Amino acid sequence: MNTPELSFFLPYFYLAWSDDILTKKEFETLSTFVSSRSWLTKNEKEFLLTKIDLASPPSRSELSEWKTIIGKELYASEDIRTVFDLIVGLSKKDEKIASYKSQFEELENDLGILSEEVINSFKEHPKTITSEYGTVTEFDVAQLTLILDGDQAPIINKVKEVISRPEFAYETSTDIFIYREKVLEWCKILADENLGNMAYPKKYGGGENIADYFAIMETLSYHDLSLVIKFGVQFGLWGMSIQSLGTEKHYAKYLKDVGTLALPGCFAMTETHHGSNVKGIETTATYNHADKTFTIHTPHENAQKEYIGNAANHGKMATVFAKLIIDGHDYGVNAFIVPLRDEKMNVLEGITIKDCGLKMGLNGVDNGIIRFHNVVIPKENMLDRFAQINEEGAFESTIPSDNKRFFTMLGTLVGGRIGIPRSALAAAKSGLTIAIKYGDKRRQFGPEGGSEVPILNYRIHQRRLLPHLAKAYALHFGLQYLTQRFIDKTEAEMQEIEALAAGMKAYTTWTTRDTLQECREACGGKGYMSENRIDALKNDTEIYTTFEGDNTVLMQLVAKNRLSEFRKEFGEMNALGVINYVYDQAKTVISQKNPFATRNTDEAHLLDKDFHLNAFQYREKQILNSAARRLKKLIDGGLDSYDAFNVVQHQMIEVAQAYLERVVLEQFYIQIEGVEDANCKAALTELCQLYALSQIEKNKGWYLEDGYMEGVKTKAIRKMVNQLCWEVRPNAVDLVNAFVIPESCLAAPIVVE
Amino acid sequence: MNTPELSFFLPYFYLAWSDDILTKKEFETLSTFVSSRSWLTKNEKEFLLTKIDLASPPSRSELSEWKTIIGKELYASEDIRTVFDLIVGLSKKDEKIASYKSQFEELENDLGILSEEVINSFKEHPKTITSEYGTVTEFDVAQLTLILDGDQAPIINKVKEVISRPEFAYETSTDIFIYREKVLEWCKILADENLGNMAYPKKYGGGENIADYFAIMETLSYHDLSLVIKFGVQFGLWGMSIQSLGTEKHYAKYLKDVGTLALPGCFAMTETHHGSNVKGIETTATYNHADKTFTIHTPHENAQKEYIGNAANHGKMATVFAKLIIDGHDYGVNAFIVPLRDEKMNVLEGITIKDCGLKMGLNGVDNGIIRFHNVVIPKENMLDRFAQINEEGAFESTIPSDNKRFFTMLGTLVGGRIGIPRSALAAAKSGLTIAIKYGDKRRQFGPEGGSEVPILNYRIHQRRLLPHLAKAYALHFGLQYLTQRFIDKTEAEMQEIEALAAGMKAYTTWTTRDTLQECREACGGKGYMSENRIDALKNDTEIYTTFEGDNTVLMQLVAKNRLSEFRKEFGEMNALGVINYVYDQAKTVISQKNPFATRNTDEAHLLDKDFHLNAFQYREKQILNSAARRLKKLIDGGLDSYDAFNVVQHQMIEVAQAYLERVVLEQFYIQIEGVEDANCKAALTELCQLYALSQIEKNKGWYLEDGYMEGVKTKAIRKMVNQLCWEVRPNAVDLVNAFVIPESCLAAPIVVE
Repeated sequence: MNTPELSFFLPYFYLAWSDDILTKKEFETLSTFVSSRSWLTKNEKEFLLTKIDLASPPSRSELSEWKTIIGKELYASEDIRTVFDLIVGLSKKDEKIASYKSQFEELENDLGILSEEVINSFKEHPKTITSEYGTVTEFDVAQLTLILDGDQAPIINKVKEVISRPEFAYETSTDIFIYREKVLEWCKILADENLGNMAYPKKYGGGENIADYFAIMETLSYHDLSLVIKFGVQFGLWGMSIQSLGTEKHYAKYLKDVGTLALPGCFAMTETHHGSNVKGIETTATYNHADKTFTIHTPHENAQKEYIGNAANHGKMATVFAKLIIDGHDYGVNAFIVPLRDEKMNVLEGITIKDCGLKMGLNGVDNGIIRFHNVVIPKENMLDRFAQINEEGAFESTIPSDNKRFFTMLGTLVGGRIGIPRSALAAAKSGLTIAIKYGDKRRQFGPEGGSEVPILNYRIHQRRLLPHLAKAYALHFGLQYLTQRFIDKTEAEMQEIEALAAGMKAYTTWTTRDTLQECREACGGKGYMSENRIDALKNDTEIYTTFEGDNTVLMQLVAKNRLSEFRKEFGEMNALGVINYVYDQAKTVISQKNPFATRNTDEAHLLDKDFHLNAFQYREKQILNSAARRLKKLIDGGLDSYDAFNVVQHQMIEVAQAYLERVVLEQFYIQIEGVEDANCKAALTELCQLYALSQIEKNKGWYLEDGYMEGVKTKAIRKMVNQLCWEVRPNAVDLVNAFVIPESCLAAPIVVE
Repeated sequence: MNTPELSFFLPYFYLAWSDDILTKKEFETLSTFVSSRSWLTKNEKEFLLTKIDLASPPSRSELSEWKTIIGKELYASEDIRTVFDLIVGLSKKDEKIASYKSQFEELENDLGILSEEVINSFKEHPKTITSEYGTVTEFDVAQLTLILDGDQAPIINKVKEVISRPEFAYETSTDIFIYREKVLEWCKILADENLGNMAYPKKYGGGENIADYFAIMETLSYHDLSLVIKFGVQFGLWGMSIQSLGTEKHYAKYLKDVGTLALPGCFAMTETHHGSNVKGIETTATYNHADKTFTIHTPHENAQKEYIGNAANHGKMATVFAKLIIDGHDYGVNAFIVPLRDEKMNVLEGITIKDCGLKMGLNGVDNGIIRFHNVVIPKENMLDRFAQINEEGAFESTIPSDNKRFFTMLGTLVGGRIGIPRSALAAAKSGLTIAIKYGDKRRQFGPEGGSEVPILNYRIHQRRLLPHLAKAYALHFGLQYLTQRFIDKTEAEMQEIEALAAGMKAYTTWTTRDTLQECREACGGKGYMSENRIDALKNDTEIYTTFEGDNTVLMQLVAKNRLSEFRKEFGEMNALGVINYVYDQAKTVISQKNPFATRNTDEAHLLDKDFHLNAFQYREKQILNSAARRLKKLIDGGLDSYDAFNVVQHQMIEVAQAYLERVVLEQFYIQIEGVEDANCKAALTELCQLYALSQIEKNKGWYLEDGYMEGVKTKAIRKMVNQLCWEVRPNAVDLVNAFVIPESCLAAPIVVE
């Protein structure tokens, strides 16, 4: 091909033979084109056609020679952007060439090739922006760990030491009975290390340190989650029910043995027909004044205590919730300690216990179904902190309403709604650690001629994982805030804190569900192998969205609490006043809704803390206003309030979500404020920005509907989220390393081998 | 309380003692209020204060008397809307009353009670709209089943009959080896019923009916999914690889035994380091012309064949994909039949097989890892439909490019991308059947004084499940369309159909993932018990989003295909032409973007088929345009095309999604068009509207950003989605009954006992 005319065709011929851009049909297009060029001689045509004869392909060495010629030309001139530019070069800038331009452009269209793309595919580009990217150290990981652990660092490190011991090697048997025994053994070791009784009074051998107790629950969650739940059932639910609902006599009698695991027990509240609506449970505790006993009874199959942890195999006693009946009067739900098994672990008379059998996860926990047939217990077994039966056999309580008393009792158990989300978040951190480290190592695809690229360099992979990483950090600080509020609580704050805990439980466990789902998919087939542990993390935490309160029900509860807070704010206003208030509120944000603000796409503005906080606060307030107005309108319109609340259920979830997201963002920013190490601060700030903007992006439909932002701004936010993902990516491995999850706990061969 | 003044307080006192609206602190508010009323006498005050003394609560009979008084008053006058109205009534319309109104309103504010709500809580309202709702028969279920099953009804019924037999009782052992043997046994029964070889040529004992084959895969998916995958590996992947890549000699030698399961085999393509980028596999098949053999070799650990179904226990042979090497030249990936085990099931020399061990799901399938150490096979074992080695030992192929040849080979295997989404959808249908029937039965909470309400009557529960039901129906018709396109395919359509199959595989399996997640949560704790089968459905289908092509990678592929289709449409245009075209396109839709259309909230418009189709088509076109322009801009700006495609990955997913959703909606409407039964047609139309509007709602951020809709319209759509959910609810049980999933397959005690 040493004449200019022939060199015109080189790029097309190379394309035809070497790669998958041209199809067989397009070979024919090419032949037709060659045959019909008036400016080619017969000989030239014949020669050219031999080069695109499917029956005699060029040899590999010839192909490689063509490639060299093209490559040299491209190397010689950086200006070549189209195939035609290339032809000009190859033809040594032949003069006739300009007149052929349109012919070749037509050919390219017929072949369906995009000129610029083809030129790119010719270039040797083993080095691209995508392939040159990777992990870079930008901050001191140990510093960040200190920030995360805070005052609980000593207990966290102790727990990590314990669960890294050889006896904590994971159980691999699929036999659930073997697994359950292993989990019980682990619990005993933890009890021996004085970790189980951490929250109990010192007087009864405890550590009297609820902050440490939560840190233990959280850190254990880097290990097996059946262990965490068994631990929580024994020392949390069972032990704390005695501590919170009982009195001195019960503490003295039971707490020490509970803390050492000498007395394994259960928390028997949920019944087959009453889970979320636990106020409706039907088990009865009938008081018999003659012999000062209670008779505990299950009236029918659907009133059996169900899903009860520690019941199927190990529990010796249970805190049983039942309706107290005195002289035929129902005094509402109260709690009673009921022995289940004797010292030899035989189930006691009148009691039937069935095994819940195989579950989706948490198979190391022995959940069971308990039925009572007129089981008699002594009077002192009533947990009588909030209600008592006096010497005359009459009911007494400082809380007049049965309902209110029951919810007060439940309120004392709110700690579970702190332990569970903290455990869930730890599981999400494990998943993120596995998926991010794998994404940093695993290579797949790459630029033509270059080596394959770590999949975490792909934008879509970053998009799938890094906003979840940012959210995990955000929730970390949000849950620390919740814990602190709980520890410092006053009576007046209780309702707010209970709602916050309920909300954070729901918000965190749903986040964990979504995070682990992405982690599983991000690890592909490897993520499906049980040895890589996403299986267990995902399936064990699956029920976190249901137990300790179904998330959807909890979110309704949070929203109702927000509505009543809102109502308080309104104070003395009547309906018209409320509406005026709402409009006034709207006026105060009008400044944020001027065209400049709603269309502002400055990078500095988009990354600005005040913009983020305002957007979250605005959303929270508006959604709450709108739900309140809608409810009022429905009720004013004559709808039964029960029906009205049903109509707005979907909106109520948003009320709760907006509230929780605002709290989490605020706390994240407040925590960052206090960080001294500049590099850690920068890394955390970037994460916080990513959290804020990816939430805004997720809610962009709402912001646009409301008019708080215009399309140009939400589009800019999408780009900024992409950009932040790209910028966080070099830090990603260090950000998960800062969790310092013990390697033996992480265990996944895809990252620790 | 027989004086008017005293009766004023009755409602508050009743509230204070009987329910949980007032707190202890508010008791004090009430006392203070009473004490400071100038219009009460000292005696009256004292009397009143005895009624709100926490130390001496009223007796239950007194409370009940108060309630009767209030109830009578409310019964007597329907006009009572506020507590003050009630007071007026109770006071027998006392004259002084008007002057006290503001005092009582202030009290209510201090107590934080909402007057209308309190009145509602006093009313006896066991019957509310929410509680009176339920399942109603609106169409003939059997008719709908006929519509769904179509021509495949006979084979579907046959498969249902087979899998309902006692020998198909689910395996409950957690021992994976026992489970695998059971699955193999089931496969043998299916083979004996001539279900496995349904797609093979009649000449080799087959049914030559690919449509029936897909219906079998789908219907089997109502049973154990390990069975489906084992079945698919044996008869689909292993058998079809011979049928699609081999020639007559291979058919004659193997197909019959494959079809009877006398010859269990594997499909060995994926390697540890190459899954998605399967073109990069490193196993070699070196041709030795001297003895006309190939040597199959695994060069290093990461080139092992991984996740290979049927490998760990049962496979006797495998189709192995390897790079063909002749005289040191690499001729790209080809396929070879390689024996793995002898008749006694001993692994052959040179081959090492490891067990993949426990997986998140599909534990009835024996996945393994295969390593070859210079394993010699005869020349005829090359599956030589697309490439051959001639008598001289030279490579021959009608497809010149190695790349193109490989993708042609893969193209023939596209059937897997039809079988998998159809299987996934069947699993989603099982989940929906369980969750919807449970939601119809399970009662929790209810109006004050009324009985508890089926949870499917709750709006949020409907919201969680019914759009998924609508989508399942939409996908049913979408997958029937895909299947038909595949069966009727011509050469020219292959690329489009391959992309459609890849897209439908991704879209359906992600939908199944989301649907089953909601189903699990909707069944609460019961959904977590393995016996109720959502566990297996969820965990077995979890890998569907990864195998047969990672969904994210597939969606990129679909988007690239859409871009090239788009490019074809552009034909001869240059860059300016393209931009003009885009603006022209925009102009044609300007009519839809006039203020009337973007704000139109008429019910008839929102439910209109044309509105739905236009909205979906518009979105598809705009997103594609925008991605193409962005790509072009990036490449024109000097970015390497590899980097440019990375930047737009997130947008590419949307390109694919919008395309698939448009196809699915169109097909749903087309299918409805043909339905004759008016009741079925009405039910399907409602579902289709729900599918259309809930997708638009999900994408409302995009529509608002684009300006195709304004906030007032997206808000109206949200309401309409709620409304449609409410209207579909009475049909929901019948709509899942129409799937006619055998009870023994559904198995879940929460719905079949």
